Amino acid sequence: MAETEDEVVERDEDEYSLDPRVVDSILDAVETGDAAAIDALMEPLHAADIADLLEQIGSAERADLVRLWSKGIDGEILSELDESIREEVIEALPHDVLTEAVRELDSDDVVDLIEDLEEPQQERILGALPEGERAAVEQSLTYPEYSAGRLMQREVVTAPEHWTVGEAIDFLRNAKELPDQFYHMILVDPRWHPTGYVTLGKLLSSKRAVKLTDIAEESFRTIDVLEEEGDVAYAFNQYHLISAPVVDADERLVGVITIDDAMAVLDEEHEEDILRLAGVGDGSLSDSVAETTKQRLPWLGVNLVTAILASVVIAQFERVIAQIVALAVLMPIVASMGGNAGTQALTVAVRAIATRDLTGSNMWRVVRREATVGLFNGVIFAVVMGVVGWFWFGSTMIGVVLAAAMVVNLVVAGLAGILIPVALEKAGVDPALASGAFVTTVTDVVGFFAFLGLAAMVLL
Amino acid sequence: MAETEDEVVERDEDEYSLDPRVVDSILDAVETGDAAAIDALMEPLHAADIADLLEQIGSAERADLVRLWSKGIDGEILSELDESIREEVIEALPHDVLTEAVRELDSDDVVDLIEDLEEPQQERILGALPEGERAAVEQSLTYPEYSAGRLMQREVVTAPEHWTVGEAIDFLRNAKELPDQFYHMILVDPRWHPTGYVTLGKLLSSKRAVKLTDIAEESFRTIDVLEEEGDVAYAFNQYHLISAPVVDADERLVGVITIDDAMAVLDEEHEEDILRLAGVGDGSLSDSVAETTKQRLPWLGVNLVTAILASVVIAQFERVIAQIVALAVLMPIVASMGGNAGTQALTVAVRAIATRDLTGSNMWRVVRREATVGLFNGVIFAVVMGVVGWFWFGSTMIGVVLAAAMVVNLVVAGLAGILIPVALEKAGVDPALASGAFVTTVTDVVGFFAFLGLAAMVLL
Repeated sequence: MAETEDEVVERDEDEYSLDPRVVDSILDAVETGDAAAIDALMEPLHAADIADLLEQIGSAERADLVRLWSKGIDGEILSELDESIREEVIEALPHDVLTEAVRELDSDDVVDLIEDLEEPQQERILGALPEGERAAVEQSLTYPEYSAGRLMQREVVTAPEHWTVGEAIDFLRNAKELPDQFYHMILVDPRWHPTGYVTLGKLLSSKRAVKLTDIAEESFRTIDVLEEEGDVAYAFNQYHLISAPVVDADERLVGVITIDDAMAVLDEEHEEDILRLAGVGDGSLSDSVAETTKQRLPWLGVNLVTAILASVVIAQFERVIAQIVALAVLMPIVASMGGNAGTQALTVAVRAIATRDLTGSNMWRVVRREATVGLFNGVIFAVVMGVVGWFWFGSTMIGVVLAAAMVVNLVVAGLAGILIPVALEKAGVDPALASGAFVTTVTDVVGFFAFLGLAAMVLL
Repeated sequence: MAETEDEVVERDEDEYSLDPRVVDSILDAVETGDAAAIDALMEPLHAADIADLLEQIGSAERADLVRLWSKGIDGEILSELDESIREEVIEALPHDVLTEAVRELDSDDVVDLIEDLEEPQQERILGALPEGERAAVEQSLTYPEYSAGRLMQREVVTAPEHWTVGEAIDFLRNAKELPDQFYHMILVDPRWHPTGYVTLGKLLSSKRAVKLTDIAEESFRTIDVLEEEGDVAYAFNQYHLISAPVVDADERLVGVITIDDAMAVLDEEHEEDILRLAGVGDGSLSDSVAETTKQRLPWLGVNLVTAILASVVIAQFERVIAQIVALAVLMPIVASMGGNAGTQALTVAVRAIATRDLTGSNMWRVVRREATVGLFNGVIFAVVMGVVGWFWFGSTMIGVVLAAAMVVNLVVAGLAGILIPVALEKAGVDPALASGAFVTTVTDVVGFFAFLGLAAMVLL
């Protein structure tokens, strides 16, 4: 059974993502300049996989591949490309290829494509669009970055509220141009306010005489065009939406967001959270050494300040350490355990804030829980470390001091781990970004101070 | 402008998630036993929000609320509830309420509801189902946990390949029972192999005489029923799938997975990654103190072992420290900077492995990049710390030793941060779970050893 499962996994990895062997074969073909082999190898690949391929290879090979491949980069591949590489690829494209690539995209994809580009490149792409679409894209760009307005697609399929199923079907059958993907017909009143929606499944399975309002979905939510995209993704996930109408300040329909875009946002938000928790900023594997060094530097700088703070605390106890060197040997253990316990608590808190599970209603219950958990784990590890310290250095009192400092630091770690993210959130700072530095400072300072301070009182 | 945006955010937070003021009002009503007020307050809430409410309040209040609320828990709320609380709520439900709640659910939701329950509770729910549905659920439960088979819904809408649009529409209009949500008709050959699919939008906008094969989607992917659900979510996100047919080992259609379920899995996988990176296991805010203590203990235990290892390294240099106490003051800085740089690199690596961006093809380029970034940041912080060490303790040599140790440890941190997750992944261990412990051990040990070792050589 285990073997069969392994086989399945093996096969599926090949099926679902870019196969490294294919990448190697393509790189070989690029090296020998074998354009026919490149065409044959690239043919079966999905645009998303081609984008991954371009991200994974070096920039010289990338340039050669783009030059040798006869089919060439299309709009879909451009959309899938990581920003850092997108600019480079767009710059290398001849004007006619770029024009064709961009013209095949829906308006929301063009917006997504150009919003992070430099001005001249934006202009180049906007210039490649037909007049009408250019205006639509420019309109979308007037909404704030990361808002629903940027995410939505402007092509909507609507029906007046009073229509019947038959009227709706006749309309759809005669419509000249419909969006590539749509799942609902949005019901609108005469002032263009959305009042409900009908799934295409219901439309197809109902008699022609049935009124649309009778088969409209029970739960119906509109999204404000200024809504932050992270909140949009949350709403899709929380309420199992498939598509949702977007409205302006007057509650008038201006576009529609579909779940695939919401899923992409959810994925990006998670990436951001994970990377921010580790102090990495918005890094990606295809960033250059210089960019990566710059991204990592600020958090290392913050960490240096907190580490120096901890050292200042230690420096207060130089005299004690000089007399009992065992303290220098053992003190990192207290700080390290506190740092870990604090990171555990803060990660749970940051995640719970992101999923709206940690609110004013349960905050004090959660704080109490974290403090109690810190106390329990503190006592458990205090006993362990007390015994270790005692055996190692043959001094009961060192064991006792170590144990007491451990309890203090783990309780503080639990409290800091929950209170600091909550306070940052209240202050309007992203808790994922800044909590780590604060919590570690607290656990380092408290850890060294409790351990060395107790030692100074008890052992000298 | 900024003010307007703030207002929007304010309003939307009320709209998109459970309002803490509503929770407080409900808790007040529970306390006074005011059933009418509870009914009125609960009426507008979505099932997902009711589930959140039940998770956020204490267990005594939860029991009272469930007892007082006249509408009562339905199947949808049960589906949304966190596991830890689901069991408690199900146990409290009278048999007829539970029966009614479960009968309204689709087969995939029932599977999701009962797969983590204890045997007697599973039996209780299975017993509440009609014979046919019970068999379907039991069939699904034969697939491995976290497989596509558990995720899929067995109700599928199919059409023979040779049908026309007209035939398909007539079939749908006369069908007795169709799934609540469906977005495609799956084309099948006579042996029940899926060969393509048609979106309902295309079906509605095409003439009756058009053949279904002529309007089938270009890209078409099936999912193996044994596929791991994380890979399913990846495929949906990577290839922008809305729904995908699930096939057995003989490539025969057995069900369909829709994007909303894939999105929920994506969300869970991210949660798992974030929590595992912090060594928290599968914790949730509604877990009890005892459960939480137990979840956090193993990683703290591992960390204790690595911390003791680091202390053993320090102990080798007791003689040096006794002579120059400044070393004890400064040594945590080197270890701490290494730990942070290592965490940065490993987080990027773990994330890149999860998104299939780090593969055999680009691995050595990434390793080189991390080492170079470590070197650059190492040199920058070496200069800073060399100067700090020199000023603080008035010794050039302490500054030089500190600087050299910093460079060594940041390069090692970059290398360990990328090589350790890759090695764990190759060995079949989840890199999110175990990388942290290994990387910190390396940076602690190397940090203390480099700093104190160099000091012993140079300063004594």
